Amino acid sequence: MKIIETAAETKAEVKRLKMQGKTVGMVPTMGFLHEGHMSLVKQSVEDNDVTVVSIFVNPTQFGPNEDLEAYPRDFEKDKAMLTEAGADIIFYPSVDEMYPEGAITMVKLASITETLCGVSRPGHFDGVATIVCKLFNIASPDRAYFGSKDYQQLQVIKRMVKDLNMDIEVIDMPIVREEDGLAMSSRNIYLKPEERESALSLSRSFEIVERLIDAEEISADVVQLSVEEFIAGYPHTEIDYIEIVHPERMTEMEKLTEDFVVALAVKVGRARLIDNKFFSVKK
Amino acid sequence: MKIIETAAETKAEVKRLKMQGKTVGMVPTMGFLHEGHMSLVKQSVEDNDVTVVSIFVNPTQFGPNEDLEAYPRDFEKDKAMLTEAGADIIFYPSVDEMYPEGAITMVKLASITETLCGVSRPGHFDGVATIVCKLFNIASPDRAYFGSKDYQQLQVIKRMVKDLNMDIEVIDMPIVREEDGLAMSSRNIYLKPEERESALSLSRSFEIVERLIDAEEISADVVQLSVEEFIAGYPHTEIDYIEIVHPERMTEMEKLTEDFVVALAVKVGRARLIDNKFFSVKK
Repeated sequence: MKIIETAAETKAEVKRLKMQGKTVGMVPTMGFLHEGHMSLVKQSVEDNDVTVVSIFVNPTQFGPNEDLEAYPRDFEKDKAMLTEAGADIIFYPSVDEMYPEGAITMVKLASITETLCGVSRPGHFDGVATIVCKLFNIASPDRAYFGSKDYQQLQVIKRMVKDLNMDIEVIDMPIVREEDGLAMSSRNIYLKPEERESALSLSRSFEIVERLIDAEEISADVVQLSVEEFIAGYPHTEIDYIEIVHPERMTEMEKLTEDFVVALAVKVGRARLIDNKFFSVKK
Repeated sequence: MKIIETAAETKAEVKRLKMQGKTVGMVPTMGFLHEGHMSLVKQSVEDNDVTVVSIFVNPTQFGPNEDLEAYPRDFEKDKAMLTEAGADIIFYPSVDEMYPEGAITMVKLASITETLCGVSRPGHFDGVATIVCKLFNIASPDRAYFGSKDYQQLQVIKRMVKDLNMDIEVIDMPIVREEDGLAMSSRNIYLKPEERESALSLSRSFEIVERLIDAEEISADVVQLSVEEFIAGYPHTEIDYIEIVHPERMTEMEKLTEDFVVALAVKVGRARLIDNKFFSVKK
């Protein structure tokens, strides 16, 4: 496995491999890898001749009061996990390599980024779209793999790829959960032991939605309030949003007469956790 | 020469040609071609195995009160000129093909787009950057050719290519002028006979700058005012801006102690004309 720190060398290496007719899969990450990331890497290794994993804690997707500095990092462990999984290249650039002095270009998406995490984290998705656009141009992947936990991010990237005519297949993989249901996240490390139980309120709340849908509840407001009450009933929780949205457009829904996604962001202690679930509505 | 109306077919055709090891040059245009465009096409034909010329009057770079509807079009003449010049592919998409319903992604550049035409045409360069990004992703050129008349556009595109890690050489070609000095432009067709002489005020004003620099004038204000008086002395002229800027950053300069660009935008009758000239300062 090669570790490459510059965009130019990564490009040259990928070009060389593509000249040999090899297909390239990419998994963009911020490192501190867990089983969620590894499910993407494994799928990429299975689907492609070459797998490029980028590890870059992207400053442009963090707000001024967010956890950029504190964001957990463990390159040696990441490297060991990626070697084990059969990745071929780690692209591991510095901030200066990705955003040299004078850089002023941003990729921005309207509407889809103005709900959910786009509200509580203004500018977040512009940062995500911009860095992913750059990474795609550097590694020229045939396929790129993203987890469904960052559901809105996934929609943003799919939309960007389509809108900017990129020739990349975006593949979304299911959320990987701990045995007790907690969605895997690098930020779970922030959870104190006494907060761990409260963190389960997110995934458990989906059971409430399931029950309401089975009982043919069609008011999004009713579902939303039930979830809110349920999560607020756990100590250490501070709800950022509970939204019921259209699966692609990410617009709010009122009547649950077609498929929808429940998307949650809840602070549990220091950890801002997100989770979501797709619900299919029988017509 | 092939005329292709869809992004997918253009991609497929370019992919096929690249598989044969062919190099691709691109000339993005809004059509109604003149000798300025043709100098780009000829250079591309000389430098590359395959030349793709796009013809698309891009709505996102026009303001609400601008000349989108009136913008001159003559596809048959363009086609004849491009056949003659040896272009290989005309990419000639519809507006729906380039901006299907639901498209929301824009490429935006800060600072560099907030001066000159960026002030008088808000959103213009976002439209330019976005469409050029899309065209580059569709045609995957090794080299792309732009005229220097749209000097700020050229800087915007060079910056975008660098910032988004695109693997494209941006080649700028000198302004092509009529015999009397008027910079070639599709919009020159708007000029009435009595306005033609006034249109020459732009290129002639550069002689004044030349003379002031020879006389070791170093105040940008003095130069700017002299140009302003000169152009305003012609009938039918309405100055949009006269700016003296840094050649790459496009920031305003005060002292003319290093190389600079004089950039002009002047309405002459219905025609909004632009022109510019690079001045080298001996140290």
